[in-house]
Amino acid sequence: MGDQATPPAPELAAMAINDGPCLKHPFSDRAPVRSIVCRPDGGAALAGNRVRAGGWVKTGREQGKGSFAFLEVNDGSCPANLQVIVDAGVADLSTLVQTGTCVLVEGLLKMPPEGTKQKIELRVDKVLHVGPTDPASYPIPKTKLSLEFLRDHIHLRPRTNTISAVARIRNALAFATHSFFQEHGFLYVHTPIITTSDCEGAGEMFQATTLISEAEKLDKELIMNPPPTEADIEAAKCTVGEKSSVVAQLKAAKATKEDISASVSDLKKAKENLSRVEERAKLKPGIPKKDGKIDYGQDFFGRQAFLTVSGQLQVETYACAVSSVYTFGPTFRAEHSHTSRHLAEFWMVEPEIAFADLQDDMNCAEAYVKYMCQWLLNKCFDDMELMAKLYDKGCIDRLRMVSSTPFERITYTEAVQLLEEAVRGGKEFEKNVEWGIDLASEHERYLTEDIFKKPVIVYNYPKGIKAFYMRLNDDSKTVAAMDILVPKVGELIGGSQREERYEVIQQRIAEMGLPLEPYEWYLDLRRYGTVKHCGFGLGFERMILFATGIDNIRDVIPFPRYPGRADL
Amino acid sequence: MGDQATPPAPELAAMAINDGPCLKHPFSDRAPVRSIVCRPDGGAALAGNRVRAGGWVKTGREQGKGSFAFLEVNDGSCPANLQVIVDAGVADLSTLVQTGTCVLVEGLLKMPPEGTKQKIELRVDKVLHVGPTDPASYPIPKTKLSLEFLRDHIHLRPRTNTISAVARIRNALAFATHSFFQEHGFLYVHTPIITTSDCEGAGEMFQATTLISEAEKLDKELIMNPPPTEADIEAAKCTVGEKSSVVAQLKAAKATKEDISASVSDLKKAKENLSRVEERAKLKPGIPKKDGKIDYGQDFFGRQAFLTVSGQLQVETYACAVSSVYTFGPTFRAEHSHTSRHLAEFWMVEPEIAFADLQDDMNCAEAYVKYMCQWLLNKCFDDMELMAKLYDKGCIDRLRMVSSTPFERITYTEAVQLLEEAVRGGKEFEKNVEWGIDLASEHERYLTEDIFKKPVIVYNYPKGIKAFYMRLNDDSKTVAAMDILVPKVGELIGGSQREERYEVIQQRIAEMGLPLEPYEWYLDLRRYGTVKHCGFGLGFERMILFATGIDNIRDVIPFPRYPGRADL
Repeated sequence: MGDQATPPAPELAAMAINDGPCLKHPFSDRAPVRSIVCRPDGGAALAGNRVRAGGWVKTGREQGKGSFAFLEVNDGSCPANLQVIVDAGVADLSTLVQTGTCVLVEGLLKMPPEGTKQKIELRVDKVLHVGPTDPASYPIPKTKLSLEFLRDHIHLRPRTNTISAVARIRNALAFATHSFFQEHGFLYVHTPIITTSDCEGAGEMFQATTLISEAEKLDKELIMNPPPTEADIEAAKCTVGEKSSVVAQLKAAKATKEDISASVSDLKKAKENLSRVEERAKLKPGIPKKDGKIDYGQDFFGRQAFLTVSGQLQVETYACAVSSVYTFGPTFRAEHSHTSRHLAEFWMVEPEIAFADLQDDMNCAEAYVKYMCQWLLNKCFDDMELMAKLYDKGCIDRLRMVSSTPFERITYTEAVQLLEEAVRGGKEFEKNVEWGIDLASEHERYLTEDIFKKPVIVYNYPKGIKAFYMRLNDDSKTVAAMDILVPKVGELIGGSQREERYEVIQQRIAEMGLPLEPYEWYLDLRRYGTVKHCGFGLGFERMILFATGIDNIRDVIPFPRYPGRADL
Repeated sequence: MGDQATPPAPELAAMAINDGPCLKHPFSDRAPVRSIVCRPDGGAALAGNRVRAGGWVKTGREQGKGSFAFLEVNDGSCPANLQVIVDAGVADLSTLVQTGTCVLVEGLLKMPPEGTKQKIELRVDKVLHVGPTDPASYPIPKTKLSLEFLRDHIHLRPRTNTISAVARIRNALAFATHSFFQEHGFLYVHTPIITTSDCEGAGEMFQATTLISEAEKLDKELIMNPPPTEADIEAAKCTVGEKSSVVAQLKAAKATKEDISASVSDLKKAKENLSRVEERAKLKPGIPKKDGKIDYGQDFFGRQAFLTVSGQLQVETYACAVSSVYTFGPTFRAEHSHTSRHLAEFWMVEPEIAFADLQDDMNCAEAYVKYMCQWLLNKCFDDMELMAKLYDKGCIDRLRMVSSTPFERITYTEAVQLLEEAVRGGKEFEKNVEWGIDLASEHERYLTEDIFKKPVIVYNYPKGIKAFYMRLNDDSKTVAAMDILVPKVGELIGGSQREERYEVIQQRIAEMGLPLEPYEWYLDLRRYGTVKHCGFGLGFERMILFATGIDNIRDVIPFPRYPGRADL
């Protein structure tokens, strides 16, 4: 071959790509290089190199009366496909051209003819692997498929353009999150998933339990091996009585030590058997109960346990010790909501900052949102272009606007006045506007989309509609809470300064009709070395909806969970 | 004051610190600067600057007959404390000196007198906040406390030197994990916590359910509002009969349209009432059953759901679409283990790589472990020094050795031979060594600690002791599995090349006596565009035990969960 002089594939490692991963497979000289076309020049500079490439065929077609085939191959590293050309002499083209086929090929990268869309193409001389796909049964052929349809094929949908782009955007936002907080000296703290302390909304929580499986196990065991009857117990008692008499008789008769000791041993065994029988007689099928209620003392943790709805309270224990922390993990709601904005399992980012007040909280939240927007513009522009083309023309402009525009900051009271003015001006809302209401999504979106046309931070909410841990303002009517509203999704972030005054928070818990005892540990943070602190929560999937313009939250999480559905 | 000429605190932002966070509080001019003493020079270069500092008093003492106080203040950014000097005229010293007090102070950074340990000290002229601590009741006074004792005060233990250092090490390893995989082009995929597909070890899984809470709600409701009796149903039926006769009579009597229509409407209401009564009569207290079994059709997801034991199978759906992925999240085991190595909730890192085989898998795992060790040496050296002082003299040398030494790679068969030789040489193991056994911890540690004195990768295990998804080797006896064994903890990583051949994996599932149906989605990955791929799992807490030398896994996770215990 004439290309012996070109450098072998591993040498490509030395080439820098703009923000992209290394061209050589990082852990193997045998595995394919990736991201050939994920470069600003579309890979043009690589012409003349021999490479191995692998991926899945997006589309393929035989040409020149079956003498060769064009394949569009994608390896998941970016939305662009590598154009691959295979001659009929090299492999069975009819298999290769099927959408969904996996190929690992080797060949020479060449400049394509003038006027073609591609900047580079791969002329294959070796096919190292083919993972075929039967087009007759392949559930996701190349025809355009709705996102709703893809939800029924959750294990194959990452092979589509949209879901793989969402995966890259989600990955980018997750790493942006870690990078932002790490750059600012925050510690990532893993708050627990299984919790015994979120006593507020127990109605909407999943229980984590082994009681049911233990009961099912016991039920099976009792069928295999029924519990003792009354008669069994009587018989065991009778045996004890008999053995006991024998001992007494032998002792009275001054029998030999050996005989007495043997009879005592018999008696001991009979007593052991009795207590075993009595113990087994207590076994009841079903979930264990005590005083008519479920006996959680017998559950795995010795008490009732739930899946967390937020890591905030727990992460405060670290903020009140190491100052700046954040948690980023899954949270759960057992709500029967079938909307496009709710999931039963979703991810939340929750920073918590000591020695900081509500203004600092807003500063942090605003900086974080801007950072994520800028990150996507820098690292995922090609994926964002796909989103703009397929789902939301304005999504790139929105990222630019948010990353560069200072957020508007208004009090709740000002927000209500603005909404009341709008109503007087003829605007109609489904829910009536008056001071004291919890702003509805329609109000939030009107503020950010119509009035300000940029992100808005609303702060100082009425205490009646907010949680007990939010710091009471001097007016005694409002608390130091803030929400960030953004175009497209409305509320993206909710946060507050936390009540650090022991007496005040104790009273607030009482006012809300909550029991004090489960919060003693939380009160301890105020009892000993209390500190002003604040924090917020960002719904991670909401951020992805905001960024991409995709409408349904079920399409921006890899494995959506909602009522009636938990595939895989 | 004479220090007007020194730059104000925010100016410090411009100063670069070696790998540390920015000196200015990132989101506030009012909040304290952090990390003053977390620099190679101990903060000496900052002398002459006015700063605000905040933190918790580790120790304090009044001096000069109560004319001033020395405080050792820590803000969680590093193990070193800032020495703070407060005059009696500035604040009530008796409160300030108590261990656990929170302070926010302002003053001038000065060089301490020659011969003192500190490189810098803060002369305070303003005390902005004091969060007092009553030493009589403070649960964690400055006396040395055992890690076991601290587990009973989980909300306050991050304020101790050990637990805050562990938090920083854990944070560093988490970010190292993301950095490593991101640098190598992997996408972070959030696999689900709630799963319906881990059918293997259902016995040791937690159930996620709303059945119990729904049943409790219904029980309460039925007490408040008892279900209809037989008589109630009869009465409702009777009413329907009556109303029906009235309609018939009016029709027969050719009554007015209005009268007939009114009677029809009455009949409709009576029928509705009857069906409502019949529906309510079906309500049964307790967990819903069907054919004697629990009716999971009525659970939140319409089927039985568990907490995940591993994200591997799910993350494979992404590897078989976008090539290189990883998951990093909590996993769960409902095992009744009370050992120092087991938790019911723990974090796992699970990469999955397409177009890669077992050798590539080992390369990746080795590179990842080395990267983490080097990261700790670079970023957490002061915390590692604390660990070396308090828990494990050799921990820093161990990190150096692992980060710089190629791992030994031997087959399982070779490992068994080496162990058998050791036994012949007089070494005693509790568990007998022979080809086919699952290596016990004692065997693993002997290989890595005694024979090789470095990390060892054992690969090609007997198929009988490994999972169905591991790729069958050509010998038909072993599978392409690998474990990484390290000194101190034994097995740190377990991985394998996955079986990509449709017929082979189908047969392996059958061989293991598992049902095929729940794995149909997993088989689809082999049915359509199958690809060679591999992956591994690293127990994140094990890595921290390995790094720090701490003995009990309950001390390296913020909120440990184990049988009988799930605080907060």
